[in-house]
Amino acid sequence: MSIFNPVDHPHRRYNPLTDQWILVSPHRAKRPWQGQQESPALETLPSHDPDCFLCPGNTRVTGDVNPDYPNTYVFTNDFAALMPDTPAAPESDDPLMRCQGARGTSRVICFSPDHSKTLPQLSLDALEAVVKTWQEQSAELGKTYPWVQVFENKGAAMGCSNPHPHGQVWANSFLPNEAEREDRLQRDYLQQYGSPMLVDYVQRELADGSRTVVETEHWLAVVPYWAAWPFETLLLPKAPVLRLTDLTDDQRRDLALALKKLTSRYDNLFQCSFPYSMGWHGAPFTDGDHAHWQLHAHFYPPLLRSASVRKFMVGYEMLAETQRDLTAEQAAERLRAVSDIHYRDAE
Amino acid sequence: MSIFNPVDHPHRRYNPLTDQWILVSPHRAKRPWQGQQESPALETLPSHDPDCFLCPGNTRVTGDVNPDYPNTYVFTNDFAALMPDTPAAPESDDPLMRCQGARGTSRVICFSPDHSKTLPQLSLDALEAVVKTWQEQSAELGKTYPWVQVFENKGAAMGCSNPHPHGQVWANSFLPNEAEREDRLQRDYLQQYGSPMLVDYVQRELADGSRTVVETEHWLAVVPYWAAWPFETLLLPKAPVLRLTDLTDDQRRDLALALKKLTSRYDNLFQCSFPYSMGWHGAPFTDGDHAHWQLHAHFYPPLLRSASVRKFMVGYEMLAETQRDLTAEQAAERLRAVSDIHYRDAE
Ligand SMILES: O=P(O)(O)O[C@H]1O[C@H](CO)[C@@H](O)[C@H](O)[C@H]1O
Ligand SMILES: O=P(O)(O)O[C@H]1O[C@H](CO)[C@@H](O)[C@H](O)[C@H]1O
Repeated sequence: MSIFNPVDHPHRRYNPLTDQWILVSPHRAKRPWQGQQESPALETLPSHDPDCFLCPGNTRVTGDVNPDYPNTYVFTNDFAALMPDTPAAPESDDPLMRCQGARGTSRVICFSPDHSKTLPQLSLDALEAVVKTWQEQSAELGKTYPWVQVFENKGAAMGCSNPHPHGQVWANSFLPNEAEREDRLQRDYLQQYGSPMLVDYVQRELADGSRTVVETEHWLAVVPYWAAWPFETLLLPKAPVLRLTDLTDDQRRDLALALKKLTSRYDNLFQCSFPYSMGWHGAPFTDGDHAHWQLHAHFYPPLLRSASVRKFMVGYEMLAETQRDLTAEQAAERLRAVSDIHYRDAE
Repeated sequence: MSIFNPVDHPHRRYNPLTDQWILVSPHRAKRPWQGQQESPALETLPSHDPDCFLCPGNTRVTGDVNPDYPNTYVFTNDFAALMPDTPAAPESDDPLMRCQGARGTSRVICFSPDHSKTLPQLSLDALEAVVKTWQEQSAELGKTYPWVQVFENKGAAMGCSNPHPHGQVWANSFLPNEAEREDRLQRDYLQQYGSPMLVDYVQRELADGSRTVVETEHWLAVVPYWAAWPFETLLLPKAPVLRLTDLTDDQRRDLALALKKLTSRYDNLFQCSFPYSMGWHGAPFTDGDHAHWQLHAHFYPPLLRSASVRKFMVGYEMLAETQRDLTAEQAAERLRAVSDIHYRDAE
């Protein structure tokens, strides 16, 4: 029997943040694809679309008129999944039909008045305004709610129904599954190893380099060792930081740069507006010790081979285990091989 | 404050098989949809397609020729994610970069020589032949591997790259995440409550009825209390059964009927070939006591409102928690409201 080689041989990798394994089958990238083709966003959009619900000055479905905003604009989702004052569900200890109340709010964050500009195409000042808005929303909602989920769904392939650059923030009266799990696993790690999991991880990746995609003065973006999605990345501050609201001015300014470089590499990979879901995880807004937490953003992009061929997390993945067709190191190498200047800026 | 009503008020439900919560926001079904449209399979396909890799008599990409099979046909996937004899990865106790060997096999199961006939359109005899093939594959692969995952990805929306009716079976040298989790949670339940979780659950659903979609002599299909996907179902034998290989002849024959009724209701809901991923979970093929297990199939269909509008499990769902727009009881009611005779048979 030959010697194990991670680039040729199927193996499993462990995600310590979620306590899940990922099946890596790198040889499988060779198979032909005859299935669904995505419709990549290639065309240039107008700077203002009179039919867009998010452009400045336009009227939304509720009749509200958007102001003439200069940078970002935040409003409560017209079809919010959570509301601040719904009655609580009756508690029950029925092990098979357990139910719990859920309160919160869902807001939309327009990133820019310009309908045509996604994150990598914004100026550093405009990107910093987005980061500031994420901080302000977290600070405000964190006063009332233990969990504030900042995220962006980008592209039709990721369920985004409007190309105007925007993200969302959902606040929760509870710790959602992923938050509870990361909280627990980071706490266990600190207890066992004496330092925060992701602070240790940053050091390991800085020393290794094979999974690095972007490094700036204060930030590091890597394809994590345990990536599930083909070009998944984890974006972390190099120094310990608990929450978005704890960033220094320098770290915030530098985050604008890291975001610009990372999302430019994404768009450059297949020369399209690269779809993804991304979002921030930081310490919950609860009492108690949060020394086990390290702020980070996850980017989950679905494309696999081209602007129109995505990875499907279906059948085996849903019923058994996440599977991927290239190693994390191969994905990082491909993202490093393209420029960090957006292909449209370079045109 | 008004009284809690699960049909109007957001709440969370608990999935005891996965230890995950689901956020239910039933009022949200009202929001308009301007995003991606799926391309539903509406047209009638030919019974034989000369370009199909799975039709009898055709040549595959490897040069192998498919035999003139009468019912089902099984072959090793030409681009298998797992192989029986790859070298094992070196073990390591590095908590941040854990890796493990993975061996196994991936096979394709053609359900019928007829290119145009999906499961609900097969005769009961032909459906029983599919169930027998699932049993044979499980028995054979279970001799070597602890986990045998039988599943089907149906429809382009679920990553299926060939409309010829087929499923897959992947055997694993390890217990994949979902298997390990269901094993652990069912074991804990038996220990705490003295009977198997899903055997108890069947009784609860038989007594209640509000989530029932199909009931036959030996089988029950329900939208589980904790459903994640809009029209997700759980298909269970009414009596305790550990694995597919343990079904009596009567249970097997009746499973063909239950499958025909359930998949017909699915197709009838939006009058299209309803996409889904489905698969079987039963006791692992390992030594030891498996009394905590109850055989079941999960059906995960993505459609939400019509043949072309699906639910996206993105942003909030990936980063925080699964969210759904209608209650399990509402979904079951809609599936019960359509016939269990396929709309094309009734034409
Ligand atoms: O094996 P197939 O049908 O080519 O591929 C399909 O099913 C597999 C198992 O669920 C997935 O890993 C693939 O992403 C999907 O496209
Ligand atoms: O809120 P939106 O953009 O209308 O909806 C999108 O994001 C939500 C949060 O991730 C998801 O629940 C929806 O399935 C998706 O279509």
